[in-house]
Amino acid sequence: MDEFALIDAFFKSMTHKREDVRLGIGDDAACLTPPAGQALVVSCDTLVAEVHFLSNWDPYDIAYKAVMVNVSDLAAMAAVPAWAMLALTLPQSPESSWLKAFSNGLQDGLNAFNMALIGGDTTRGPFSLTLTVHGFAPFDKVVSRAGARPGDSIWVSGTLGAAALAVERLKSPHQIPQDDQAILMNQLLRPRPRVDLTPFLQTYATSAIDLSDGLSADLNHICEASALGACLNLDAIPVHAVVNQYKQKEALDFALQGGDDYELCFTVASEQEAAWHRCMTDSGLQCFCIGVMEAEQGLRIKESDGRIRALRPQGYSHF
Amino acid sequence: MDEFALIDAFFKSMTHKREDVRLGIGDDAACLTPPAGQALVVSCDTLVAEVHFLSNWDPYDIAYKAVMVNVSDLAAMAAVPAWAMLALTLPQSPESSWLKAFSNGLQDGLNAFNMALIGGDTTRGPFSLTLTVHGFAPFDKVVSRAGARPGDSIWVSGTLGAAALAVERLKSPHQIPQDDQAILMNQLLRPRPRVDLTPFLQTYATSAIDLSDGLSADLNHICEASALGACLNLDAIPVHAVVNQYKQKEALDFALQGGDDYELCFTVASEQEAAWHRCMTDSGLQCFCIGVMEAEQGLRIKESDGRIRALRPQGYSHF
Repeated sequence: MDEFALIDAFFKSMTHKREDVRLGIGDDAACLTPPAGQALVVSCDTLVAEVHFLSNWDPYDIAYKAVMVNVSDLAAMAAVPAWAMLALTLPQSPESSWLKAFSNGLQDGLNAFNMALIGGDTTRGPFSLTLTVHGFAPFDKVVSRAGARPGDSIWVSGTLGAAALAVERLKSPHQIPQDDQAILMNQLLRPRPRVDLTPFLQTYATSAIDLSDGLSADLNHICEASALGACLNLDAIPVHAVVNQYKQKEALDFALQGGDDYELCFTVASEQEAAWHRCMTDSGLQCFCIGVMEAEQGLRIKESDGRIRALRPQGYSHF
Repeated sequence: MDEFALIDAFFKSMTHKREDVRLGIGDDAACLTPPAGQALVVSCDTLVAEVHFLSNWDPYDIAYKAVMVNVSDLAAMAAVPAWAMLALTLPQSPESSWLKAFSNGLQDGLNAFNMALIGGDTTRGPFSLTLTVHGFAPFDKVVSRAGARPGDSIWVSGTLGAAALAVERLKSPHQIPQDDQAILMNQLLRPRPRVDLTPFLQTYATSAIDLSDGLSADLNHICEASALGACLNLDAIPVHAVVNQYKQKEALDFALQGGDDYELCFTVASEQEAAWHRCMTDSGLQCFCIGVMEAEQGLRIKESDGRIRALRPQGYSHF
């Protein structure tokens, strides 16, 4: 099967599910109708075999995860997902069964957000894939990393550290019971980008970032973009229960430095805090207040005994 | 230098040259203002080391060519280029001098079309790069592959075969004189996407495609998308002079099957043909009429003696 037959057989059907796609897969470029009066929000993430995933993983999981980590960047901007381009590089002509599983994972991932695959490129080379995703938000509702102010409270949208522990466990999978191992792998393979928070971020957040590299590194990006610092409360960091169970001593390190969780970290202005608390109660959201933005630059953490120490931002870096 | 310092030092300056970029490099996603009432045209192309380029090439050339081949897809839709996302995968932390040359090539490539780099992703892995490019065109002026009609004349925008000969010569560079070798390498390294044709395509073309895989394969895409066939005139195929000089017998094969030329192939309706000829004269454009679209499917070629034979579409395929 050559690259064109492959695209026709496995990917073309994903293109025509949205009315704003005038021309999808199968031409030199896609032709789209952006909604009038809204910002176009665009991001891309590459996943490389043996770096972001193992090439012996189920191709369904690889494609599904690629969608999730890309959509997570749109969620961090409080944008509504719409379109995806796929650049897929494979070392040889893949088996039909492999492609079927891969395209099913892609389809299920995109369907979860009503997204259309609008095009892409298929090339031969070391296995990797790059998705470029597009979404929309009203111009005055886009949430960047740069809007935090001193006194804003700092929030995370869920518990942390499980994906990083899953990565560690990939090397020695039999040291914890199978059901806990399954919880960890699910966290790693099926991250859930927090687009459910989009309307709330649009209303309450002054800044936001998704947690892909690790809380301390990612929060540090908000600090740098906003020209501020942050002080975290050690006891408030929400560590995933399985991480607490198997990594008592290092659990906090997994939460602060472990990547791949794809929860959101965001800030809320103090004058909005009461309304935000009411909103969480009303909507059943469980987010965690972990600290406060401060004028003094740098990251700090308040220990259980009240002492404050400097916190070095650490997280995944490719180089 | 970690990936964030690298992005700041070499790429961030390319982001803020357009007013429609509200938020460029340095956040979870870019935030853009698409022009009201126009179609958004999006394409992506991956370049893989040792497949699309050699990793020992000057990094300036690699980046520059990546822009050109991507913009060529926008030119084939008759769209005006605007924004690019870069997904760059490198095996190790690159030398500053390498990055400087790479970013200069990227910058010069983007500047040639007034494009802004709006974001991307930098990862570790086997060397490759994917650009996703965005452009605009009035909705009723976008030119797809699917609009050709029987009787439309078929055109190419320049001479063909030189890039394919350059690829062949990479393996044995010393068999032709240095100045001809330089002409070939320039064709391979510095293709010029035909955005200069955009206003003319918008007015005269019923279909278009860029010549990346080879004329016969690419024209076949127009035929399939338009549910038609085509008959070419062998004597009218514009073969590059250097190809004619060194490949007398196979020159036509280089023109018909050789990829990487990045000229455009397009069709013009018969009732527009007189106006199109006047337009070419007035604007000094040199395009070549190479055949006619026909209702009967398949590719055919008319030899010098008038005999017509079937032409098998052949060109580059990754698998």
